[in-house]
Amino acid sequence: MIYADHNATSALRPEARAAMLEAMELGANPSSVHGPGRAARKIMERARAQIGAAIGSAGKDLVFTSGGTESNRLAIAGALGQLSRSSDSAPIFLFARIEHSAVLEQLPAADGALEVATNPDGKISLEHLRMRLEEARASGRKPVLTLMLANNETGVIQPVSEAAALVREFDGLVHCDAVQALGKIQVNTKLLGVDYLALSGHKCGGPSGIGALWIRPGAPLMPLHKGGGQERSLRSGTENLSGIAGFGAAAEVSTGNLREFARLAGIRDEMEAKLKPHGVTIFGESSDRLSNTSCFALPGFKSETQVMAMDLAGVAISAGAACSSGKVKASGVLQAMGAGDELASSAIRVSFGWNTGAQDGAVIAEKWVAAASRRPGVR
Amino acid sequence: MIYADHNATSALRPEARAAMLEAMELGANPSSVHGPGRAARKIMERARAQIGAAIGSAGKDLVFTSGGTESNRLAIAGALGQLSRSSDSAPIFLFARIEHSAVLEQLPAADGALEVATNPDGKISLEHLRMRLEEARASGRKPVLTLMLANNETGVIQPVSEAAALVREFDGLVHCDAVQALGKIQVNTKLLGVDYLALSGHKCGGPSGIGALWIRPGAPLMPLHKGGGQERSLRSGTENLSGIAGFGAAAEVSTGNLREFARLAGIRDEMEAKLKPHGVTIFGESSDRLSNTSCFALPGFKSETQVMAMDLAGVAISAGAACSSGKVKASGVLQAMGAGDELASSAIRVSFGWNTGAQDGAVIAEKWVAAASRRPGVR
Repeated sequence: MIYADHNATSALRPEARAAMLEAMELGANPSSVHGPGRAARKIMERARAQIGAAIGSAGKDLVFTSGGTESNRLAIAGALGQLSRSSDSAPIFLFARIEHSAVLEQLPAADGALEVATNPDGKISLEHLRMRLEEARASGRKPVLTLMLANNETGVIQPVSEAAALVREFDGLVHCDAVQALGKIQVNTKLLGVDYLALSGHKCGGPSGIGALWIRPGAPLMPLHKGGGQERSLRSGTENLSGIAGFGAAAEVSTGNLREFARLAGIRDEMEAKLKPHGVTIFGESSDRLSNTSCFALPGFKSETQVMAMDLAGVAISAGAACSSGKVKASGVLQAMGAGDELASSAIRVSFGWNTGAQDGAVIAEKWVAAASRRPGVR
Repeated sequence: MIYADHNATSALRPEARAAMLEAMELGANPSSVHGPGRAARKIMERARAQIGAAIGSAGKDLVFTSGGTESNRLAIAGALGQLSRSSDSAPIFLFARIEHSAVLEQLPAADGALEVATNPDGKISLEHLRMRLEEARASGRKPVLTLMLANNETGVIQPVSEAAALVREFDGLVHCDAVQALGKIQVNTKLLGVDYLALSGHKCGGPSGIGALWIRPGAPLMPLHKGGGQERSLRSGTENLSGIAGFGAAAEVSTGNLREFARLAGIRDEMEAKLKPHGVTIFGESSDRLSNTSCFALPGFKSETQVMAMDLAGVAISAGAACSSGKVKASGVLQAMGAGDELASSAIRVSFGWNTGAQDGAVIAEKWVAAASRRPGVR
């Protein structure tokens, strides 16, 4: 089996596994003051420092969560709650349709959020963002932009630092979903200039069920999970010690090996070169993309048919974002880039990872070409 | 080191460890439709069935969360949100002060919640509950009782099924925090007659960072984490696969060994018998308690001094609930039972677990007596 669905969940890195095992042996609560509790806290704080260093920041400004969805929710609902409490008018969120559903579904309804256009290359339109910021200023509401760093489906890297600088001119705030970027490209809170940054463990070789939100000191945030007062009272609940330890190790080792990760571009490009003669459209090809990600479509060759055919051929890929129901919907990301229904519902995503073999791209291309030649309607 | 703080976090059971390792090898997303994804889903559904069976219920009615705090929050905020949306008047929550902070802190403020008295034996007053239900009826608001099954500090078991039957007479709903009860006493949703039941992995020998909420089919619930639509859209976010696997194994093995767990009462009683001649007060002694839990105080011997002295003597215990800040506050639970400030601030909790040795109770008593004889003010 060739596993090429690392953007859904990557394989656990050996360093993360070792750190998890160490934490699992401990069996103590980091909030306990006795010896075993202090040992647990030490493991947790080591991981916090590792993740802080991975994003060019202080670990103390991180809050551990249960994953990317909760991190995004904490930033959006937490900022909304605090801003609504402390000012006369509610803030207005700005977003593009390329955002992950974990962001889109959290946004306030009705007039609480304004869409910013996506360019055909998969990037947010900075021109349109400026127009939206002008609108927000005219309405007297504080703008909060939510912009991902790298798209999960196409791998397209967004102009986050440019957008953040623009938002700053309008006295706004920026939340960045960096879940898919960590460990794949440089992620640096200072260079990005954002106020909130969402991270997840299982996309960079750590375990699932653990994430973090980095919060710029002073940025408004209302806690959602209240109770025992863990994480500076910003996120109560006994900490996921083994998850935190694994995430810390994965963040450290993945961000320390960005050059090694960049080798995946060669594997990806070889695959795409073999696919192109067969008429596929490659999404975001002209943009800077994550080196490990390829999203392509052959009109009329349905996404789910491709995923199943490739699964039978021993290749694990996906149709866009991992979808909870197992049902495949046409991708909103691709539609935002201007793809019609037929093209969007024929797209698949191949995403490589740290343990991808040098030949995997070529093998996948061969198997895909064979599957495509047998697709319904072809003789 | 004798570890006697299992109510904070228990040691990981070997069966849970093995299940986690199996899940960690997989490195796939249970929402993915390919082979590795289906294998991940199978592990998740096996755990769901194990936990369902552990509470005498169908696994399908469980929603996985990040732990007890989130489970309690989902029940309380989720019921509040749904009830407020679908009826003319907001519901009114009924609670006792013995509830965990993860419950108390989630309750609506001001007139959204009414306190029910706690008896000196550590149990909720059913007489006062009836009065509060009459008040709720008079105000035309639907009552929602939140009542834990076993108290984390004293181990006192609450009359949940009696309380639930009473609430039913008033057309109300009942949420039960069973975090501290699972794997220690029988927990059966049908016998309890509740609408929501919160569970956690790390109190019964599973990992921390994973929990579940059981929801009676048809009970009102608004999701909080929105996004990918996992867990029947009631809790989005990629599932914590290794945590779920470990929780499932721990739930199965701990509830399958309740008789073995009951042996801890002998160890606990032996310890208490050796402590009593030294003037300690044992909280909830006259009530049914968890077999593993003892909460006692010697007035004037401060909780934190005891915890530190015992830590130096090689015994890990706690001062009430594991407190995030490391600071020790006088217990609200004990105050609700009528303990004055001095007594409440002199209390410690000893909690045994599945790997507690037969001599541990006697050894702890000896070490405690030695520490008490050297306490400040004693000559």
